Order: sequence, then structure tokens, then C-alpha cells
Amino acid sequence: MQIAILLYPGFTALDAIGPYQTLNPLPDAEVLFVAERAAPVTDDNGTLTLTPRKTLTEVPDPDIVVVPGGPPENVQPQMANPAVLDWLRAADAHTTWTTSVCTGSLLLAAAGFLKGRRATSHWLALDALQGLGAEPTGERVVFDGKYVTAAGVSSGIDMGLTLAGKIAGDPYAQGIQLMIEYDPQPPYDAGSPEKAPAELVEKFRSEESEEAEAAQA
Amino acid sequence: MQIAILLYPGFTALDAIGPYQTLNPLPDAEVLFVAERAAPVTDDNGTLTLTPRKTLTEVPDPDIVVVPGGPPENVQPQMANPAVLDWLRAADAHTTWTTSVCTGSLLLAAAGFLKGRRATSHWLALDALQGLGAEPTGERVVFDGKYVTAAGVSSGIDMGLTLAGKIAGDPYAQGIQLMIEYDPQPPYDAGSPEKAPAELVEKFRSEESEEAEAAQA
Repeated sequence: MQIAILLYPGFTALDAIGPYQTLNPLPDAEVLFVAERAAPVTDDNGTLTLTPRKTLTEVPDPDIVVVPGGPPENVQPQMANPAVLDWLRAADAHTTWTTSVCTGSLLLAAAGFLKGRRATSHWLALDALQGLGAEPTGERVVFDGKYVTAAGVSSGIDMGLTLAGKIAGDPYAQGIQLMIEYDPQPPYDAGSPEKAPAELVEKFRSEESEEAEAAQA
Repeated sequence: MQIAILLYPGFTALDAIGPYQTLNPLPDAEVLFVAERAAPVTDDNGTLTLTPRKTLTEVPDPDIVVVPGGPPENVQPQMANPAVLDWLRAADAHTTWTTSVCTGSLLLAAAGFLKGRRATSHWLALDALQGLGAEPTGERVVFDGKYVTAAGVSSGIDMGLTLAGKIAGDPYAQGIQLMIEYDPQPPYDAGSPEKAPAELVEKFRSEESEEAEAAQA
């Protein structure tokens, strides 16, 4: 079972690592970090540099595709990158599961996979997702057929575990959860726009709007 | 504020990325992945390869040290590696916080930091931690003075957020939580040995014992 995790300049690290850490222990899983070119790829902070195992052309038909997200300005170039879109479409013709974390769903939508489908994304990107023809939901992990989308950044852990259970059964997935000791105890209950202080939500929404306007100007 | 995350062959990816993703957004934070040598470092699955930004000698006095864990056979060589132990001890003389995730605490203990201190580790490594003179607790994130240790793998997210709150205040840390949408919804409640099915716990304990015996033989 080949699992390809797409890397591109400016991806968000935990988006990729959550699914990686939860899917890699699956029986017979071969996880491959893949990228357009055979060169190290740096994340959205310019801090973390990952080496892809293979180029896209070397992994034409993975069983599972995982597309991590990143800030809009990093995802948008990929939404117009024929090399990435063509690979996604060709791979998707064979996948068992095509998945994304965070704004990775915008890339799935750009490839044409999410038209009329229930899906999710980072909470700040739900409007953009709708603009691309998907039907955003407020759920953390959304299954629609073989398309699985997860909410922002850390939700890839929940997606990976859920998918692991569907693939290898509940006891196996529980074993993965136990070994990564995923018994979350966040010090705050501010992990969604519904739960976080309203002024924080408003602050990030304003910043996002300003950045979007600046990008269009 | 310089934050050094130690890389070594066979570390566990999420151990490093959880704190990275939660501490990097702190004001004036400069996160540096550091390693003994200036060469890419591969994780415990042989799948993920990270490029360190700096060598240990180039980062002598970080404000925060983060030591990720890994399987015992990967951590043990570092517990006897003078380059790593000497760096840890010299750095610790200046740090504001010295931290670990998972079996990274065994390395802190080997460096002599945890003698008589409350600390934690991966649930399968608590006996080993005690054997090194620490006082293991069942908590997920343990503060004892400036030493902060977290439980297995995924607990580094909770540790990072908790530390972010102490450094930059609760609202700032809540903002980090909101932006990584850390509103965990695991599909199972099997993330600790107290909560997981007993047969799973027993299975992993037996495997661990067998591996330990094989290593001693």
C-alpha cells in the first residue's frame, strides 16, 4: 500500500506529519514524501526542510494521496501548477483514498475532485473552498466517497487515525493511537472558531481579509 | 528567543514537529533544528529526512532546548554520545526552558538534569526514566523548575501550547491553538494505557520486553 504525501514550497509541517505518523504504522504501508522535483522542500516558516523520497513522475499510482495545506499564498501557486494538478488527477484515477489536511483541500478542489462534495478545510478557508464548488461542513474530518478532507493543521492526526481504522480495523488503529500516546489534553479550549475567544477569531479574520486584499492589489 | 530542536538518527517525527508547530509562532522566536553534523537526519521509520539548520557547536546557548524521543534503540546511542551530552549540559547552563517529548526525557536524564525531579516519558519508558533517577508521574506534561517533559509522541503539542502560554500569555497561546485548529477529536479513546483496551497494552508491553531482552543478549 503506497501512500504519497505531497510536498511543495511553503507547506505546513504538521499538516504532513500528522497523517504520516498515523498512517505509516499500517500493515504493508510504504509512505513516500513526493515533490515535483528531487530537491529538499522548505515549509511555510522557512525553517523545516524535508527531503522528498521520489518525484511525482516516479509515483504515478499511489493507493493513498495526502495533500497538506499551507498559507493561501503558498497553496495558490500549486492550484495553478500543471505538474501538480496533472499528477493529482492521474493518481486519483487509481487511488483508494484521496485526502487532504487544512488548505490542501483547495488543491483537491482545484483538481476538480470536490465539485458538489462535502468537504472541509482550515476554518479561514471554508469560503474559498465553497468558491471552488465544494460544500463545506463544520466537521473536523469529512468523508465523501473516497475523498477525505480534514480541518486545519492538527486535524490530520484525527484524519489519519480514522482512515487507519477503516483500512486496518479499529483495534489496529487504537494500537497506533496508544503508541503515539494520543490522549490530547490541550491547556485551552480555543481550537475552533466556535470555542476560541471571539476577539481572537475576529483578529485572524481581519488579518486574512487584509492579506487577501493585498494579494489582489 | 532561540529554540533549538535536537535531531539525531532515528528520532520520531511528530515528537519534534508538535513543539515546532506550537512554539515557532511565538514572538521573536527563532527555531533551529540542530544536529551533531551538518547533514540530513532520517527518522525512526527511515522515511522522513530533515535538514538541520545548524550543528550543535553553532548553537551553544539557545533559550529553549527541545529533545524529541525515538524508539529505545535509537535513543540509547545518544545517551552515550559525548557530543550530544556535552552540548546538552553546556546549553542547559543558559536555557530558560529545557524540554523533551517522549523518550527524549531519557536523554535529559542521562545528561543529569532529572535527578530527583518529577518528569514523564512515553508510557513504555517510565520504568527506564525511574531507573535514571527521575520521579515519573502519570501526567501528560510535567513541569519541574525549568525542566518540562511530555509523554509519548503527540503530547509535544500540548507541551508546546502550555509553554507558549507561560512565555507569551494565555491569549497568545490560544491564538496559536486556533490557527493550528487544535480541537482534537480522536476517533477512539485509546490514547493512554489507562484508556486503551487491556490486551493492546499487554501486547505492546510484551513486545517491548522482548526487544529489551534481545538487545541485552
